[in-house]
Amino acid sequence: MSNDEEMIREVIANWMSATARGDVSQILKLMDEDAVFLVAGQPPMRGRAAFALGLEKALSQFQIKSTSEVEEIKVNGDWAYCWNNLKVTMTPKSPGTAIRRSGYTLTIFRKDEEGNWLLFRDANLLTVDA
Amino acid sequence: MSNDEEMIREVIANWMSATARGDVSQILKLMDEDAVFLVAGQPPMRGRAAFALGLEKALSQFQIKSTSEVEEIKVNGDWAYCWNNLKVTMTPKSPGTAIRRSGYTLTIFRKDEEGNWLLFRDANLLTVDA
Repeated sequence: MSNDEEMIREVIANWMSATARGDVSQILKLMDEDAVFLVAGQPPMRGRAAFALGLEKALSQFQIKSTSEVEEIKVNGDWAYCWNNLKVTMTPKSPGTAIRRSGYTLTIFRKDEEGNWLLFRDANLLTVDA
Repeated sequence: MSNDEEMIREVIANWMSATARGDVSQILKLMDEDAVFLVAGQPPMRGRAAFALGLEKALSQFQIKSTSEVEEIKVNGDWAYCWNNLKVTMTPKSPGTAIRRSGYTLTIFRKDEEGNWLLFRDANLLTVDA
């Protein structure tokens, strides 16, 4: 496994652990300022600031735990893509039933000037488990 | 616009026109043998042969017309990604109501040894219009 591939796996692991901790500022460091998030049935979410608003709202209501099985990472210079199988459990902070979602993501990462890999484009295909 | 970007736009245009004509063999030439298609709520569809089976079934039942608005193409050597806004109308060949679907795709293309751009990984976020 290349060093770049290991670094991208670390970004994914850090993203999930920061989400579980509710650490928004840490998550924002893992994405590009101009990141775009694509989700079925919704307009594209453009930029770190828009993402932060949505994430803060979700984390105020839920504890979010996730596991990831990377299917493929392909690095090409300062760009990479990753195809990932995710399972996410959102447990309400007030009494209620946990929501389980699972499915795939296809993500583009780019390496910034300091050598950090950042999430840049993300297509999220997760659906609520029956 | 780079020559590579123009070639990728042509692949997308050819894909849509071949789909409208029901020309499966032409569509298969535009994808890699090991292409993977990700759709919400379904297991990944792996490889040209699996895709051909699904496409032939769809084209036997529907005429499929689509329009595309490319949001972004980024080329990096022999790899590229494209983020695209699609509208698809599936009109049944037997009497019935047309199904309209719209939404985004995030697609990875690779350039083969002969210089042709081929679809390699595709995340399809289209949903049925209300």
